[in-house]
Amino acid sequence: MFTLQHQDRASKARVGVLRTGHGLVETPIFMPVGTQGAVKAVHGHEVRALGAQIILANTYHLALRPGAELLRDAGGLHRFMHCDLPILTDSGGYQVFSLTALRKIERDGVTFRSHIDGSAHRFTPASVIDVQRAIGSDIMMILDECPPADCGYEYARRSGDLTLRWAAQAREHIAATGPLHGHAQRAFGIVQGNVFDDLRRQSALGLIDLDFDGYAIGGLAVGEAAEVMYRVTDFTTDLLPARKPRYLMGVGTPLNIVESVARGIDMFDCVMPTRNGRNAMVFTREGPLTIKKERYLRDNRPIDETCACHTCRTHSRAYVCHLFRAREILALQLASIHNLAFYLQLTRDMRSAILNDAFFAWKNAFIDRYTGGTRAAGAGSDR
Amino acid sequence: MFTLQHQDRASKARVGVLRTGHGLVETPIFMPVGTQGAVKAVHGHEVRALGAQIILANTYHLALRPGAELLRDAGGLHRFMHCDLPILTDSGGYQVFSLTALRKIERDGVTFRSHIDGSAHRFTPASVIDVQRAIGSDIMMILDECPPADCGYEYARRSGDLTLRWAAQAREHIAATGPLHGHAQRAFGIVQGNVFDDLRRQSALGLIDLDFDGYAIGGLAVGEAAEVMYRVTDFTTDLLPARKPRYLMGVGTPLNIVESVARGIDMFDCVMPTRNGRNAMVFTREGPLTIKKERYLRDNRPIDETCACHTCRTHSRAYVCHLFRAREILALQLASIHNLAFYLQLTRDMRSAILNDAFFAWKNAFIDRYTGGTRAAGAGSDR
Repeated sequence: MFTLQHQDRASKARVGVLRTGHGLVETPIFMPVGTQGAVKAVHGHEVRALGAQIILANTYHLALRPGAELLRDAGGLHRFMHCDLPILTDSGGYQVFSLTALRKIERDGVTFRSHIDGSAHRFTPASVIDVQRAIGSDIMMILDECPPADCGYEYARRSGDLTLRWAAQAREHIAATGPLHGHAQRAFGIVQGNVFDDLRRQSALGLIDLDFDGYAIGGLAVGEAAEVMYRVTDFTTDLLPARKPRYLMGVGTPLNIVESVARGIDMFDCVMPTRNGRNAMVFTREGPLTIKKERYLRDNRPIDETCACHTCRTHSRAYVCHLFRAREILALQLASIHNLAFYLQLTRDMRSAILNDAFFAWKNAFIDRYTGGTRAAGAGSDR
Repeated sequence: MFTLQHQDRASKARVGVLRTGHGLVETPIFMPVGTQGAVKAVHGHEVRALGAQIILANTYHLALRPGAELLRDAGGLHRFMHCDLPILTDSGGYQVFSLTALRKIERDGVTFRSHIDGSAHRFTPASVIDVQRAIGSDIMMILDECPPADCGYEYARRSGDLTLRWAAQAREHIAATGPLHGHAQRAFGIVQGNVFDDLRRQSALGLIDLDFDGYAIGGLAVGEAAEVMYRVTDFTTDLLPARKPRYLMGVGTPLNIVESVARGIDMFDCVMPTRNGRNAMVFTREGPLTIKKERYLRDNRPIDETCACHTCRTHSRAYVCHLFRAREILALQLASIHNLAFYLQLTRDMRSAILNDAFFAWKNAFIDRYTGGTRAAGAGSDR
């Protein structure tokens, strides 16, 4: 499924290509988030035009609405949402375990109440695979428990055991079932273990024994310090096989992504470009801007002069600022498009830099510019 | 400015072409509403791709935000919003007079408080032209008072006198000023007079004396019965010169538009396609649908099988239904695009029918199908 194309010499950064039933994915890659079968405020053809190669959807959300049966009958999510890009579905573990007051974890699964209507549901390692068979995702994620950052060693240990047991059950169910929509479906295991090296090792080795098509690192970006996240990522990627793709779930800021690529991560997803975009935060090479600030009302430059997205090619900061101040939906659309373009260009730039054996210099220059080290007076960031 | 190309024999329907500083506008035409310099939830390039030939913006809203001075300095609204279509700006009279508790009408203008921040403003016939000079609209509307449907004869008479006096002042100010952005700006008078024939006549004749570039009919679609609106429209268009364009402000449903074209109207604007679209009402040849109803979750047909818009070419009723139920912004985008396509196709269809001397038959067939006269069982409408 995965071909490692190039390994950086000065860091663990690497370049590869994933083969899926809906085409190739060149890594490192950022996956735009389309939780409910739509990238918020962005048309499907716009997502594709931005250079997205794979998108993310969510099993928990889709199981509740519109439901697995409907998606199965519709021919899967690709057909339902008219998407010919590969789709990765998160298992919904993260969402279910976020419903702290509404769920009960048992040995064989988790019972929870829908955040929409309070109806009772149960996820097991097998049922979550069944839903993803109905969805037809190109990459399925196993059911895991994602504990909070401060859960402590004992909880993390028991939770890691549970996730590993569930992973074995998921593996068995994957082998016993097949795709419903005529294309191959791969499955990734999720390494848990909180911030504890021995638990991370136990989780990683257990999952490797089960021979998944790729390995995700879960349980990070849940409140711990960035340095802790980098350390655990670094430690964990050392344990993972070089010839399998590695996915750091729910990460992160542009700097988080750059630092994690340097630590051997291939795949990322995060709501930040779209969610922050809807809240008027736009990314530029010189750092993020709060584009609805009054100062941008007379700024006729594009959001980022180096960006080739529709928003930057067409509209000024002044116009986007006006749209946010006037509460126009178009503001959310334009900011989301730009921020996705920024994230996708970021992973493309890293790919080129690694292939050219220039990642170290590229990374330093990017961070320097993004954090203001070389910023010219008034060049952009409002931080 | 206006060339009358063809006059229907069996009705007052007509076909013409408006010349503006931003290109030709073929009538009858529907103008998508971009109140604050954006058509809600629709990209500018999408508005153009739908075949829109002119859009509408609002002087009141733009004067408050981002302000006339900023728009003037930005090179006008076309440049600010990156729009190369002609723009018509409503004077804001309607909006100001809707602020019943916040405004005070005086002999020479109206003082009001902003609906945004309560700040005090004053509009005069001249100041509203000044704002529209800053905006650079291709067609400017004069300041009028738009009284409610049930205002009574005495109020309507005094209000009509006021609007006519203001129109004369506006005419004078237009003559005394010039465009700021290098293209011609035309001005339309607004016929008032409520439902009273003698007041409508007095208003129309007074405005014709002032020789505007076109004539709008205001004060309709403000709560009166459709039959009353048709009667007043019919009466008023008889008074207006054949060689000038006629614009029925704020109208209306697809049936209202068809009936008003039959009574000699050339131009329409209405928030209905976008506002109702955002509320999950979509238009079809067989009548409107409430697309978020559960029954559409398994309907794999396009919203309207005869429609060539992006939404109908790409997505099913089921997907749009899911997006509304899941409260995705993309739902608002897709419904708005389709509804604008429906309105624009409607005016194009009328234009063809009139040119082919087939308007009478076309109109009967359209109304029959839209209201269900020939509806096959289950063919579409959920009314």
